[in-house]
Amino acid sequence: MQTDILIIGGSAAGFVAASTAKLNYPNKKVVLFRNEEVVMIPCGIPYIYGTTGSSEKNVLPDMGLKNAGVEINIGEITDINCSEKFCKSSSGEQINFEKLIIATGSTPIKPQWLKGSHLQNVYVIPKNKKYLDSFQTELENIKDIAIIGAGFIGVEVADELKKIGKNVTIIEKQNQILPAAFDEEIAAEANAIISERGVKVITGSGIKEIIGNEKVQGIILEDGREIQADAVVLSMGYAPNNELAKKCGLTLNEKGFIQVDEYMRTSVHGIFAAGDCAEKRDFFTRKISSTMLASTACAEARIAAMNIFQLSVLKTFGGTIAIYSTAVGNTSFSTAGLTEKMAIDEGYNIITGVFEGVDRHPGALPGSHKQKVKLIVSKECGTILGAEIIGGISSGELINVVGIMIQSKMSLASLITSQIGTHPLLTASPAAYPLIKAAEMAWKQIKMG
Amino acid sequence: MQTDILIIGGSAAGFVAASTAKLNYPNKKVVLFRNEEVVMIPCGIPYIYGTTGSSEKNVLPDMGLKNAGVEINIGEITDINCSEKFCKSSSGEQINFEKLIIATGSTPIKPQWLKGSHLQNVYVIPKNKKYLDSFQTELENIKDIAIIGAGFIGVEVADELKKIGKNVTIIEKQNQILPAAFDEEIAAEANAIISERGVKVITGSGIKEIIGNEKVQGIILEDGREIQADAVVLSMGYAPNNELAKKCGLTLNEKGFIQVDEYMRTSVHGIFAAGDCAEKRDFFTRKISSTMLASTACAEARIAAMNIFQLSVLKTFGGTIAIYSTAVGNTSFSTAGLTEKMAIDEGYNIITGVFEGVDRHPGALPGSHKQKVKLIVSKECGTILGAEIIGGISSGELINVVGIMIQSKMSLASLITSQIGTHPLLTASPAAYPLIKAAEMAWKQIKMG
Repeated sequence: MQTDILIIGGSAAGFVAASTAKLNYPNKKVVLFRNEEVVMIPCGIPYIYGTTGSSEKNVLPDMGLKNAGVEINIGEITDINCSEKFCKSSSGEQINFEKLIIATGSTPIKPQWLKGSHLQNVYVIPKNKKYLDSFQTELENIKDIAIIGAGFIGVEVADELKKIGKNVTIIEKQNQILPAAFDEEIAAEANAIISERGVKVITGSGIKEIIGNEKVQGIILEDGREIQADAVVLSMGYAPNNELAKKCGLTLNEKGFIQVDEYMRTSVHGIFAAGDCAEKRDFFTRKISSTMLASTACAEARIAAMNIFQLSVLKTFGGTIAIYSTAVGNTSFSTAGLTEKMAIDEGYNIITGVFEGVDRHPGALPGSHKQKVKLIVSKECGTILGAEIIGGISSGELINVVGIMIQSKMSLASLITSQIGTHPLLTASPAAYPLIKAAEMAWKQIKMG
Repeated sequence: MQTDILIIGGSAAGFVAASTAKLNYPNKKVVLFRNEEVVMIPCGIPYIYGTTGSSEKNVLPDMGLKNAGVEINIGEITDINCSEKFCKSSSGEQINFEKLIIATGSTPIKPQWLKGSHLQNVYVIPKNKKYLDSFQTELENIKDIAIIGAGFIGVEVADELKKIGKNVTIIEKQNQILPAAFDEEIAAEANAIISERGVKVITGSGIKEIIGNEKVQGIILEDGREIQADAVVLSMGYAPNNELAKKCGLTLNEKGFIQVDEYMRTSVHGIFAAGDCAEKRDFFTRKISSTMLASTACAEARIAAMNIFQLSVLKTFGGTIAIYSTAVGNTSFSTAGLTEKMAIDEGYNIITGVFEGVDRHPGALPGSHKQKVKLIVSKECGTILGAEIIGGISSGELINVVGIMIQSKMSLASLITSQIGTHPLLTASPAAYPLIKAAEMAWKQIKMG
């Protein structure tokens, strides 16, 4: 087979790379290879257990790509020949390409050091429909579940499994849940809500061992505590799928991601990478980042596909900002950029501003929810470094307001004097808009020196 | 009385000017004079009829200002002496000031030419609690209501009065409802929803006359049609309260607004103006604008108060963008910047991009709502000129994402390659985020020439 553009991988990055390539180069042939018959919407996976009830309702449809003229192939690419520009599939087929985008994604980590991780009823959360369906079936015979790792996936899966009546304990090595995304006092509010909803939360002690003969019987924590469990879900992070890239000689970074530049170009001419498998740098610190988000993956994929035949200085990736949200019950937790702790640890001279209001005005209107904004700002120049928001449904977009401010390197003075749109039924009041009030609180501290 | 800063007016602009002044100059005395015993939250006014049920639940509390150390006086300022820097109140008190911020707001228009506008049961919607309460009481004996003018206030009041069982007809001179905010095809969707909810909508014919002896009996349209009504609500716009400014010799513009510069300084040194009474210029066209929004008023008030003792090039008003939203039932309509029609009428060479998706992912999740984004973009340089959004609750903040993009003069390429945060329960999918997909649709057209 001969194609102009070959894309390996069919999840968020591969999907968006294919559609963007076709949009920008409608006359080029675009072929997408993926392992999965059916692709899961990655962020929706936790919600198949307690909300949608089935993985069928969480499928990324192929129709859009097919209608756009993308050729979808189900099959594994096993080799890339970089110099002669062809790939081989597991069925022996050779696919010649002019340009290649690698979007192979990531796989849940099952650590080698963890004793008992080979036992039956030890699960992970991969983006694999068959695996997820079989976990859902096996759940029927499971009552007590220990979830290891209280990042987003851990917390969301915990809440969903609790919803369907399981006894859920979530264990986090660090002293708070959601440690990579929120400062301690914000995470404490999420902790309070999931605890109130019946999830048992243990922080400050990691897992030492999973016990059991064939099947899981429980876990032992680092501090010696033993917890009874019929099943264990490991949500200890994801590792980039880099085998193919490694095999064909592409440069990987020290964390195992495929090295890319700001156009998403790998070390080999004509080969791009995007999504969880591709190198990321933090927007501010410029350090190599391990943040894996479908939304970031989509931005990277757009950039890769737009630059694939012709580079553009307009369309580059400026670094990962890590804008994300989760929801527990009717309360959402959103974050963008650096937390206060991260910023201090990295050596920024910062101030913070916090304001708590409501997301309707007047607050007496139905559906109103507390809205609390914590803003992290550089003291030296007033640049907005990050924000954390607790709120209702609208905070999922409010964090994008902050995200665009960060990407525009907006200063505190510009934020305070920004025009924002408000409506009684949809947002906070313009006179007490928590994002602007939090900025004023930060401003006051700068003025006081 | 002697004060460092005097503020005239206690609604959105006066309130925010006072709190911002105190925040930035904590050692200065800040005195606020207002006519009203109790201040209404301006944007919440329509919702006292069918949603909160009472104006008591729509009060802007004084507590925040009082705690900040602002002195609130109830009373009318009748004169300003610009050269000697003092005001006189209706009770004869003299207030000497160093700096003055005029935030006298606006009054509903009751046109002189409109025959019958003096009749009983002809109402307007002022920011006046007593008036609004008395209207609410009198509503008990009213069944058929004609609302004249289908701007935001007209549409919101129409929907609220329908909710409490009135027969409501809304009349708009132009060929669509919400003509100042939305293009025709977007407004048509709002029209369909309020019609379905039982409001009778008449467009394309203005009012000619209100008929009746003492009380309203009906109205006659320009096209001769007669509509029976027990009451008429005029929502035909608001005029700036400029009497005080005019009397003391401040320069007004040709539309009657108090002339101000980008620091919100009037023609007299030391006197500032903000909010509905102050001059506005459109962000793009630079033309004088009549847009009156509490949110814009708050931004202006912050800028006036921050610059009051010392000018800062960082804190200026860049022109009115007009970001606003309304909601009918569970559907929201939001807009920012120029509509397609406005942009063409003004002479911009534009393209638009439209995309319709859902505001959850997967769409099978509970609470999901259609989300449609129309983006208006300069063809010459790719600058984002405006957007219109139909959606659920989150669109009230999504329009602020666009608002910040406009204020940052973000280009289409930057929007397409932006990082956005998403979550299944809170936003659209990152792979089909309507704002970015609409941008891609516009991009495609630019590429095609």
